[in-house]
Amino acid sequence: MINIAILGYGNLGKGIEKAVLKNPDMKLAAIFTRRDPKTLTTKSAAPVLNVSEIESWQGKIDVLILCGGSATDLPEQTPKYAKMFNVVDSFDTHAKIPTHFKNVDEASRANKKTAAISVGWDPGMFSLNRLYANCIMPDGCDYTFWGKGVSQGHSDAVRRIEGVLDARQYTIPIESALEAVRAGKNPKLTTREKHKRECFVVLKEGADPKKVEQQIVTMPNYFDEYDTTVHFITKEELDKNHSGIPHGGFVIRCGETSPNVKHVIEYSLKLDSNPEFTTSVLIAYARAIYRLNKEGNYGAKTVFDIAPSYLSPKTHQELISTML
Amino acid sequence: MINIAILGYGNLGKGIEKAVLKNPDMKLAAIFTRRDPKTLTTKSAAPVLNVSEIESWQGKIDVLILCGGSATDLPEQTPKYAKMFNVVDSFDTHAKIPTHFKNVDEASRANKKTAAISVGWDPGMFSLNRLYANCIMPDGCDYTFWGKGVSQGHSDAVRRIEGVLDARQYTIPIESALEAVRAGKNPKLTTREKHKRECFVVLKEGADPKKVEQQIVTMPNYFDEYDTTVHFITKEELDKNHSGIPHGGFVIRCGETSPNVKHVIEYSLKLDSNPEFTTSVLIAYARAIYRLNKEGNYGAKTVFDIAPSYLSPKTHQELISTML
Repeated sequence: MINIAILGYGNLGKGIEKAVLKNPDMKLAAIFTRRDPKTLTTKSAAPVLNVSEIESWQGKIDVLILCGGSATDLPEQTPKYAKMFNVVDSFDTHAKIPTHFKNVDEASRANKKTAAISVGWDPGMFSLNRLYANCIMPDGCDYTFWGKGVSQGHSDAVRRIEGVLDARQYTIPIESALEAVRAGKNPKLTTREKHKRECFVVLKEGADPKKVEQQIVTMPNYFDEYDTTVHFITKEELDKNHSGIPHGGFVIRCGETSPNVKHVIEYSLKLDSNPEFTTSVLIAYARAIYRLNKEGNYGAKTVFDIAPSYLSPKTHQELISTML
Repeated sequence: MINIAILGYGNLGKGIEKAVLKNPDMKLAAIFTRRDPKTLTTKSAAPVLNVSEIESWQGKIDVLILCGGSATDLPEQTPKYAKMFNVVDSFDTHAKIPTHFKNVDEASRANKKTAAISVGWDPGMFSLNRLYANCIMPDGCDYTFWGKGVSQGHSDAVRRIEGVLDARQYTIPIESALEAVRAGKNPKLTTREKHKRECFVVLKEGADPKKVEQQIVTMPNYFDEYDTTVHFITKEELDKNHSGIPHGGFVIRCGETSPNVKHVIEYSLKLDSNPEFTTSVLIAYARAIYRLNKEGNYGAKTVFDIAPSYLSPKTHQELISTML
């Protein structure tokens, strides 16, 4: 049994708790939180502890899954805990990945630990598909589309507007752009041509819908480069129809292997729950990290650095007999 | 530069010749054939030699790509040449892969060589996607659809019927089945419900179309379990409209991460040329095998055993900066 622990009991932490149940070779050993453990209601029998106690768990945990955010939690937490445990995180600030990798690599390697960073679906499974497709077809073009899905960042941005009580924002890929890409036309697409945005907004009493809508659609970086539709709905409608966290997207590469001989490689995800899918990927990589560490393979890894067979509970013989 | 050699100058051999041109870190060093080298017209400047001379090329070739067939060539060739060279093959008889793996592993390991077997798209990229999706979602169902594409085996079977001058057979996935799978309905599908077959047939003079059609649609294993449409056309039409070797397909896994929380992972290929795409995959794995061998990692490998970063000519730093 692989003993898994969680640090952080938000959406990702709750997802790990569920994902462990789907993997019979794993056991949830502990949940660590920065909050008062008594305030947490968890779904498993695993003990809930304050993070201040984590050091004493060295040797009792095979892999610690870091479920904090990329903005401030993980840059500090992952290198720190990679000194004590094998760790997996979902660090997703693409531009800062090289620095994060270096910090985690040094911390884990010096302490004979193994770490996987930036695991999930983007970065993660989408990155893998970009890499494989680029290696197979060096002569081609890449396209990534996201959605239909909830963007937490954009939903938060709408919620910060004066007069808004609550809001949910969906990122939606534009079907005609997807079709042009799939047809191998290698189109040059602007931001506006690739995705549109749809907002469901609950107003505070007395707020002016025209004014709120104007503030949304003109918001720099978040909305001004997109065609955005704003729907005003009641709090009840929002809670009933928009409480899920679906997401997904498409990674497409079109290329040529000789003049006019074209190929299209497409990978897509359609996810009912972004955090539950992300944590299912994290757990598979936790298995890989556990094994790599047993083999004496230390330091930081990304999805690029790990052979696929390490993710599976099956033996090599089973894999080549049943899945190849 | 990685020195590549080809054994066998059929569709795959010709594909390797083109694929090498797309990879600036590679050079085609030699083409080996069982035929009289003088009878071959190749497209590159690489020397063409009879296979009897191959032993003297040890040390001059980094990776030998075996471009023979799975039925009789590769079971004999791959273990034989894995003693002398790093090799890559596209062995695709799924049921015999474990035996082939064992034979190649013993031969290569004993001689400090590295080999990749069963590389291509199925087995190959499709296998990888089955594996990743299964590891992420242990609770789910797998579906593989092939096509639209030319099946050489089925085309050959039609050609063997008396009265048939030439023929081309297309395997076509049934759209409604694909849609049911994508909708997460986990349908139980019979052979007939997943694919249909379409044949374009040129008759010999005097042949009876009714009789030929009947023989095709009732042919055991090849056609009797499918809905098959037969079109009779002229030799000119066949050559003009059906001379390509397109193929492709879909690997889909639908699963749940908690009750009623569903996800769909889909990978698809749309290929103008089956052999050119297959050889593009072979060449990427040739790069990986070359590197693994340099690191002292010997023996047989499958796509499951090779970390994705080995396929790329980019450095690790470049990969995590640009593709993760």
